[in-house]
Amino acid sequence: MSAEILCIGTELLLGNITNGNARWIAEQLASLGIAHHRQQVVGDNRERVIAAVREAAGRCRLLITTGGLGPTPDDLTTEAIAAAFDTPLVERPEVWADIQAKLAARGRPLTPSLRRQALLPDGAAVLPNATGSAPGMIWSPVPGFTVLTFPGVPSEMQAMWCATAAPWLLRSGLAEGVFASRMLRFWGVAESTLAEQVADLLEQPNPTVAPYAGAGEVKLRLTARAATAAAAEALLAPLEAEIRRRADAHCFGADGDSLASVVLERLRQRGETLAVAESCTGGGLGAAITAVPGASEVFLGGVIAYANAVKQELLAVPADRLASHGAVSDPVAEAMAEGVRRRIGSTWALAVTGVAGPGGGTAQKPVGLVHIALAGPAGVRSEPVRFGGSRGRDWIRTLTIGEALNRLRLALAESEAAESCR
Amino acid sequence: MSAEILCIGTELLLGNITNGNARWIAEQLASLGIAHHRQQVVGDNRERVIAAVREAAGRCRLLITTGGLGPTPDDLTTEAIAAAFDTPLVERPEVWADIQAKLAARGRPLTPSLRRQALLPDGAAVLPNATGSAPGMIWSPVPGFTVLTFPGVPSEMQAMWCATAAPWLLRSGLAEGVFASRMLRFWGVAESTLAEQVADLLEQPNPTVAPYAGAGEVKLRLTARAATAAAAEALLAPLEAEIRRRADAHCFGADGDSLASVVLERLRQRGETLAVAESCTGGGLGAAITAVPGASEVFLGGVIAYANAVKQELLAVPADRLASHGAVSDPVAEAMAEGVRRRIGSTWALAVTGVAGPGGGTAQKPVGLVHIALAGPAGVRSEPVRFGGSRGRDWIRTLTIGEALNRLRLALAESEAAESCR
Repeated sequence: MSAEILCIGTELLLGNITNGNARWIAEQLASLGIAHHRQQVVGDNRERVIAAVREAAGRCRLLITTGGLGPTPDDLTTEAIAAAFDTPLVERPEVWADIQAKLAARGRPLTPSLRRQALLPDGAAVLPNATGSAPGMIWSPVPGFTVLTFPGVPSEMQAMWCATAAPWLLRSGLAEGVFASRMLRFWGVAESTLAEQVADLLEQPNPTVAPYAGAGEVKLRLTARAATAAAAEALLAPLEAEIRRRADAHCFGADGDSLASVVLERLRQRGETLAVAESCTGGGLGAAITAVPGASEVFLGGVIAYANAVKQELLAVPADRLASHGAVSDPVAEAMAEGVRRRIGSTWALAVTGVAGPGGGTAQKPVGLVHIALAGPAGVRSEPVRFGGSRGRDWIRTLTIGEALNRLRLALAESEAAESCR
Repeated sequence: MSAEILCIGTELLLGNITNGNARWIAEQLASLGIAHHRQQVVGDNRERVIAAVREAAGRCRLLITTGGLGPTPDDLTTEAIAAAFDTPLVERPEVWADIQAKLAARGRPLTPSLRRQALLPDGAAVLPNATGSAPGMIWSPVPGFTVLTFPGVPSEMQAMWCATAAPWLLRSGLAEGVFASRMLRFWGVAESTLAEQVADLLEQPNPTVAPYAGAGEVKLRLTARAATAAAAEALLAPLEAEIRRRADAHCFGADGDSLASVVLERLRQRGETLAVAESCTGGGLGAAITAVPGASEVFLGGVIAYANAVKQELLAVPADRLASHGAVSDPVAEAMAEGVRRRIGSTWALAVTGVAGPGGGTAQKPVGLVHIALAGPAGVRSEPVRFGGSRGRDWIRTLTIGEALNRLRLALAESEAAESCR
C-alpha cells in the first residue's frame, strides 16, 4: 500500500536547486497516513523516466511525480509515462481551451508549443492546475497502480495538491484509516527545549507528536489515526490541550496561522491599528503583515527608515540621539516607534533597527544585534535581542520580523490578562 | 561512467527535513565532471537499503550514500551494504582507537554502541571523518562499482568530501572532463517565448542550454564540458553572447544576480540613490532591495502607504486625486513616487499601488491590476500592469516587485544608451 515520489528535472541532478517538492509531498503523505518508502530523482531524459516509472509500478501502489509538464522540449514527463505503458496521447479540448483562456487573460502570445500541454494518455483524468498552464493527471495504467503528475513550480504543485489530489487520496483507500492532524506553532522556544517539555508524548504511537524547526518558529505536528474523522479529532483534542498547557505562551497558533495573522486578528477584534518603522528589515516587517489578506483593516502603513536622514526627517528621531547612541540602540528604536505612531496615528507601532550583516558589525554592536521597540497607549519600550551572525543576513532579518510580531502578541495578551483581572 | 546518490533516513521520507545533502553532492559531482543520473532516498530499513544498493550496482559505476553511519540501531547503512554483497564486517582497530580518543577529548562517555562504528566490510578503505565519530568507506565490492559512504550531518559530510573524497574522485578516472556552467536570468519574457527564441540551441549536445521558470523570472542554464576549466569556459562565452543578443534587454544578469542587485549596482556606479513608496506590496519592494548586502549605499528608505490617510499625510498625495481616480490609478502612483522622492531626496523613486486580492477587486479594477510609477530626474511616469488574479496574493506581490525593479533597470539602460549616443 505504499507510495513513491519521482522528481524529474536535470536541474536537480546538477545541484542547481534543492528538492523542496519532495519534502513537501513527503510531509503531506505522512499527514494523510499514506506510507512512503522511496523517493527518486531523474533528469529530463525520456529513457530514464520510462525506466524509473516502470520500476516504481512494480514496487508501489501510488507514484507522485513532479516536473517536466511545461511546454519546452525538455518537458517530457507525460509522454514518457504514456510510453512506459504503451499508451497513446490524446489531446483534451477542454485543457487546450483552458490554456488559451489563461494566456489571453495575461495578454501573452499563444505559441504552438503550449498545445503539447493539452496531451494526456488515453484514459487519464485531468488533475487541474488553476494557476499555471500545465495540468497534471491522475492515471491508473495498470490495475493497482496510480500515477499523479504535478508541475515542478512549487506554488502550482501545492495548490493542485490541496485542491484535487489530497481529496482524491483521502477517497482512494490508500490511507490506512483516517488521519487528523494539527500543526501547533511556537515562537521563543528552542526545538530541543520544547522536545524535552513533551518528551513523553513523542514516544506514544497514536496520536503521534513530531517536532519540526524552521526559521525561528518551532512546530509540533500532532497526528491521530482512527476509524472516522470524528474519532481521530477526539484523540487530538486532549493532546493539544496538554501541549498548550505545557508550552504556555510560546504556542501562538495552529495550522495556517502565522504570527502576523494572529496579531492582526487580535487587533481587529480590539478595534486597534498598527504601524511600523523599519531599518534593518527594510520593509520585510510590513511585507509579512500585509501578506495576510485583509491586513488593511488594521495595518495603516509605515516608514522604511534605512538612512539616518530618513529616521530624522520622517520619524523625527532627534539628531543628538543618533549621534550619542548610534542608529542601532534602544533610544533610537524607541524614537522610531514613537515617531511612526505619532505620524500615522496608530494605536500600536513596532520599530526595528539592527545589524543584519554581513558588513557593519563592531565589537559593541555585532552582526545579529537588533533593537526592537513597541509603542502603544501605555508608552514605549525597546529591548535588544542577539541572533548571532553565523546564519546570515536573511536569517537575521526573518528572525527580527518574527520577534517583533511576537513582542506585540505578548503585549496584547498581557494587557488582556490584566483587564480580565480587574 | 555515471554516478548515483542514495540518501538513507526515515526523516527524509517523513518530510521532516529537506534533502540538502543531495543538492550539495550533485553540485560537487557536476563541478568534477562526473555524470550523475539518479538520486534515491530510502528509510532506515535494512531490506530496502540492500535492494537500493544492489539496483544501483547494476546501473552505475559510483554510488554515494549519506546517512545511517551513527551508533543507534537505526543506523544500518554499513551493515546493509556489506550484506548486499555477502561480505563480513571486520572491526578496524585504528577506527576504534580514533573514536575512543575523540570521545575522551569531548569528555563524553564511551558507550558500547559506539563500537559498531568501527566495523567496515572486509576489503573497504576507511573514509576518515575528522570532526565526527562515524567514518565512511570507499569500497569496490565488485569490479567496476565503487561505493562511498558519508554521515548525514552536512558539516561532517562536506568536510569528508573535500578532504578525501574529492581528491580520490579526481584520480579515479570517473570524471569525463570538467564542467563549467552559467545561469542567465531574464525578466519580462515568457518561458515558452524565450525557449522558441533559442530553440536551435536547446538541441545541441555541448554546451547544453536548459530553460527554467520561476515567479516571473525565467532562467537558462548553460553547461559546457571540456578537458580543462578554461576550455569549458571558452565554449560558454560565445553561447552566452549569442543568447544575450537574441534576448536583448530581457536578460538582466547571470548566476547570483537578482533584479535588485543589478539595479543597485548600476545606481552605485552612477552615484545615484533610490526610495520607494508601497501600497499593495506593503514593504516587500523595500525588503527585496535591502536583501542585497550593502544596499545602504544606494537605498535611502521609503514609505509603506497602505492606508489612504498615509498616502496623503506622508506622501502629500492630493485628496482630490485619491477621490477622483481612486488609490489604484496612474495619477496616484505618480503622486506617490514624486512624494517619496521629494520627502527623502533620492535620485529615483519607485511607487506601486494595486489590488493584490483576494478581496477588493472590481470590474474596472480587478485583482492583479497594479500601477507602477517611476520618478527620476526627467520626471515621473506611471503605467498599469495586469498580472491576473488566479495565482493569488503572494504571486501578484512578487511579480509587482520584480516588475517595478525591471522598470527602473530599463530606464537606467535607456538613459545610458541615450548618453552614449550624444
